[in-house]
Amino acid sequence: MMNKGLLIVVSGPSGAGKGSICRQLLNTVSEIKLSVSVTTRNPRSGEVEGENYYFVEKKDFEKLIEKDDLLEYAKVYDNYYGTPRKYVMDHIQQGKDVLLEIDIQGALQIKERYPEGIFVFILPPSMQELKRRIIHRGSETEASLEKRFQSAFEEINYVKKYDYCVVNDHLDQAVERVKAIIKAEKCKVTKDIEEIILKYKEEGLC
Amino acid sequence: MMNKGLLIVVSGPSGAGKGSICRQLLNTVSEIKLSVSVTTRNPRSGEVEGENYYFVEKKDFEKLIEKDDLLEYAKVYDNYYGTPRKYVMDHIQQGKDVLLEIDIQGALQIKERYPEGIFVFILPPSMQELKRRIIHRGSETEASLEKRFQSAFEEINYVKKYDYCVVNDHLDQAVERVKAIIKAEKCKVTKDIEEIILKYKEEGLC
Repeated sequence: MMNKGLLIVVSGPSGAGKGSICRQLLNTVSEIKLSVSVTTRNPRSGEVEGENYYFVEKKDFEKLIEKDDLLEYAKVYDNYYGTPRKYVMDHIQQGKDVLLEIDIQGALQIKERYPEGIFVFILPPSMQELKRRIIHRGSETEASLEKRFQSAFEEINYVKKYDYCVVNDHLDQAVERVKAIIKAEKCKVTKDIEEIILKYKEEGLC
Repeated sequence: MMNKGLLIVVSGPSGAGKGSICRQLLNTVSEIKLSVSVTTRNPRSGEVEGENYYFVEKKDFEKLIEKDDLLEYAKVYDNYYGTPRKYVMDHIQQGKDVLLEIDIQGALQIKERYPEGIFVFILPPSMQELKRRIIHRGSETEASLEKRFQSAFEEINYVKKYDYCVVNDHLDQAVERVKAIIKAEKCKVTKDIEEIILKYKEEGLC
């Protein structure tokens, strides 16, 4: 029942499949806008400016921080990553929904700054399956694998801070659940309801 | 993320179309159980015991009230109508979703006794359309029409007490919205989440 768009934050441990869910969601619901992150790391081969990331210099990123132009940011091994506030807020004000795929620390920062967002935690069907998926990516050493698995294991605790939790057992069904969450959220009775009541009443009096 | 079933209470002013929405929902989602009301009024031609209503004697209805066996009840022109508690609670405990189509006063009684229910208010697309639908039913005198319309007009205010509000502009779309609400509610993070976290942790330690 809202005129503003929704900010849908999809998050969860690595290996849970939040990337696949977001891709399929964007492919099937054309109205949803993807929030593109800004980073100081170098583009990898094939990455497109404004599609995968906005690539900026470190000094420009620090200006964004200074001017409070980021909804969240983090420094990972000397590289900054962040979510530009303006893109998200402009679209929401125009009534468009914005999707943000982000790690758990980023999601929690956003929740502090924009609690009206819809926070969706993606769970793997099981820890064994999560392990299998992390191994399957193949780009890890045994030690970093173990570390990544341990971190996913701890991250599961954060699901408590989210509004919704979607088990990614079958990709199609998981995407349907996220779509249902978005549709249901648009039917929620919020404080905007007073305006709607007024509209019905004015019309009823004509 | 819940094992218990949901109680979905569909309510709204007469003419909003809650009956059509519930019928279509039951026809397309076979797992949902309809809660059948109990009444002391006589069966009308074609009405089936246990399908349209449970028909009981007045003294038996009063026993149900006494024993607190009703989730809600009302007396309308000398006839009692009520919602048997046991049917609803048994199914919910078994993990089945129960649908209840009910007027606003009944819904508000249920909300007091079972606030975990999902309360969905059906709105007509406009008051003019509501008027047209009430007239179209054709079974009313001019005076009772005006009264019914006036009461619908006042009932719109109660939407504030509900969790969700679905505008019944197109029946199919309205039904899709109710389905989305049910699907999304099943993904909500509730206090049951602790159990789920534990399950993942135990499995991860194996």
